[in-house]
Amino acid sequence: MNTRLNIKKHMNPERAEQLVITKRPHIETKSLASSIEDIFDAVSTDGDEAIKRLTTLYDKVNLDSLQVSKIDIINASQHIKPKLKESIQRAYDNIFKFHNSQRLASKKIETSTGVTCWQESRGIDSVGLYIPGGSAPLFSTVLMLGVPAQIAECQEIILCTPPNKNGSVHPAILFAAELCGISKIFKIGGAQAIASLVIGTESVPKVTKIFGPGNQYVTAAKLKAIEYGVAIDLPAGPSEVLVFADSECYPEFIAADLISQAEHGPDSQVIFVTISEKIIASVEECLHEQLNRLPRRSIAEQALENAHIIYFESLDRAFEFINEYAPEHLIIASNRASDYIGKINNAGSVFLGNMTPESAGDYASGTNHTLPTSGFAKSYSGVSLDSFIKKITFQTISIEGIKDLGPSIINMAEEEELEGHANAVRVRLQSITS
Amino acid sequence: MNTRLNIKKHMNPERAEQLVITKRPHIETKSLASSIEDIFDAVSTDGDEAIKRLTTLYDKVNLDSLQVSKIDIINASQHIKPKLKESIQRAYDNIFKFHNSQRLASKKIETSTGVTCWQESRGIDSVGLYIPGGSAPLFSTVLMLGVPAQIAECQEIILCTPPNKNGSVHPAILFAAELCGISKIFKIGGAQAIASLVIGTESVPKVTKIFGPGNQYVTAAKLKAIEYGVAIDLPAGPSEVLVFADSECYPEFIAADLISQAEHGPDSQVIFVTISEKIIASVEECLHEQLNRLPRRSIAEQALENAHIIYFESLDRAFEFINEYAPEHLIIASNRASDYIGKINNAGSVFLGNMTPESAGDYASGTNHTLPTSGFAKSYSGVSLDSFIKKITFQTISIEGIKDLGPSIINMAEEEELEGHANAVRVRLQSITS
Repeated sequence: MNTRLNIKKHMNPERAEQLVITKRPHIETKSLASSIEDIFDAVSTDGDEAIKRLTTLYDKVNLDSLQVSKIDIINASQHIKPKLKESIQRAYDNIFKFHNSQRLASKKIETSTGVTCWQESRGIDSVGLYIPGGSAPLFSTVLMLGVPAQIAECQEIILCTPPNKNGSVHPAILFAAELCGISKIFKIGGAQAIASLVIGTESVPKVTKIFGPGNQYVTAAKLKAIEYGVAIDLPAGPSEVLVFADSECYPEFIAADLISQAEHGPDSQVIFVTISEKIIASVEECLHEQLNRLPRRSIAEQALENAHIIYFESLDRAFEFINEYAPEHLIIASNRASDYIGKINNAGSVFLGNMTPESAGDYASGTNHTLPTSGFAKSYSGVSLDSFIKKITFQTISIEGIKDLGPSIINMAEEEELEGHANAVRVRLQSITS
Repeated sequence: MNTRLNIKKHMNPERAEQLVITKRPHIETKSLASSIEDIFDAVSTDGDEAIKRLTTLYDKVNLDSLQVSKIDIINASQHIKPKLKESIQRAYDNIFKFHNSQRLASKKIETSTGVTCWQESRGIDSVGLYIPGGSAPLFSTVLMLGVPAQIAECQEIILCTPPNKNGSVHPAILFAAELCGISKIFKIGGAQAIASLVIGTESVPKVTKIFGPGNQYVTAAKLKAIEYGVAIDLPAGPSEVLVFADSECYPEFIAADLISQAEHGPDSQVIFVTISEKIIASVEECLHEQLNRLPRRSIAEQALENAHIIYFESLDRAFEFINEYAPEHLIIASNRASDYIGKINNAGSVFLGNMTPESAGDYASGTNHTLPTSGFAKSYSGVSLDSFIKKITFQTISIEGIKDLGPSIINMAEEEELEGHANAVRVRLQSITS
């Protein structure tokens, strides 16, 4: 064993210790405020020209056109391996099926005689999807944002992603986008992508909601977007997994799941909670063994240095901790995983049973992988069809309805000293009786 | 006619003029930042003592205890008129029925062989409801926030509202709260209420999401709450109504609806859009007539000075404008209101037909009255049961499922250069075949 990994262990931690573990790293964006402000100002003043300048500066490439041509999108599928195309298509199908099942079933409710209320959903008119660059193309995120946007029937779906050194976009990104019916793809990365979606330029349409992950600049720019009245998907933070295991688990699988989270980045949050003391050593052994074979080992090791292994004697205390931590991803490593469902109050996405790795949800099970981090699972849901729609409430009242309910409305309006509100009912009642 | 009201009229406005009309007043909160900061600091340092100090300063009353006693809550119903109790109970029943119909119907979807995904909802653990003070008790807002919180089964529901000069809370507020099962009620108003819910004090529990309207101090404090990681219901702005009418309408009802919005405050946004040029004069006449009888006339007149009457020859252009404006409340004043439903893309709550005044939705139809203003109806829904829950996604994969889908996951993970993700599937597939 040629690694000295030493993960912090907590045996039946007290509440105070527990609270310390649930603390997430603070994401500092204030120091970036002035550079973000500069980027927004530049895009605001110079539009496309500013974006091209910033692209030359940050992405080291000069672009003639910011937009990916239609022909490049259509040809993309010829430039990726058939096997990958098939895998992306399978993922697309599963994500489509699950998100399509989230459609609002509009139910008309007669709340009282002649008073009918219901909700209808409408796609958000225009949405911007940001797909970060990096060493590998994040086509999975294209699907996770593009599929619900497609189902929601958003009228305008704009995708921004940084160009590579040749000034092009990876064909797997374009292929995934085309599956989702996205035709407006811009080669813009970082804060300038967010700024262009917020402000609008000659090429890039202004949108009303922005989605997608990114580095601290993108995060800071998304916070700036809110100031401009543009909505965003979720507050962003480093990715997280919490694996819970009882004795009916496979330490090798647990280690693999913890590592799959750890390899995302040095700031990945990795927690292992168990009520089976005896499996801890086996999990650690598997971790060491698997790490030695991992290409992104140094990244994973940095993340694991901040990891925690926590043993609870009491199942209730274990879930008290889990709900207090509110993990983005929660894996229930047990042959009887469904027994624990009722105990889960706060989590983004839950993976039940020994055959359900988090990576299934990252790519292809059908659930979304854009999820609340940093404890926001206490108050936010992950991205779903809901994120791309508004639910508008409708009501209609018949003559019988206003006769029946009207006097109560008048009474309450008078008590709240809103005579105009009472009068709006009164004029109607008078017209009926007269 | 003893009023000189002169509402701005626009006949078939050009697009540029249209864009000007859709602009909302900017809500300035930056200038309040330092006083809000002071209040948060004080509550953070001195807890309950700071709140009492601020209550003496702003509400002109010295409180021994911040919390309303159980006995006061129970006795409240004896101190309000039976007729009002009955009206509040009717409103409660309707709001309950409609919000209860919004429960998530959990559907398990087999996205592919052996891969099952679903959503389950969980109430947000602890929520804070803010009910502003003022001349009249806003019991209707207690119901609008309390009922969905009750249905969501939020474990802790905290209500804050400023005390009156006697240091007590109006019994109608307490009665409405008790109907909703709220037992923790604090006599705290303004920014100090929000600060105490965000930070937590000896008396007031810290919450994870804050709801409710308020003045600019409350709005600024809610923006501050976000910085602390506490979620809020909606960005706030002045209330709005847009009435759309064709020729099959009643000018008297339209005038009453416009006035009922205008009486909320001088900054209320009042818009009348019509495709029937000839009804404009009648609506104006009714406005003058009804204003003369309105107790809150001076408030309504101020609001109406900023109102707009807009005539469109083209129905499509009328709805293009309406969707661009994205009103909080949209009244469709027509005998054939349902014909227009398909044209509505952006609105908070819609009132269909001549017998459906906005005040029905403010109090008792069953829909929520906490709605997106300032054009946020383009991207946000109003408060609903959804606002009080999180939807957690679950997935479970069988041995057959991972054998079937696993290779695609491995393939995609490898393409994204995440070997650890691929390995999490591989270790499982190996365990099956070995």
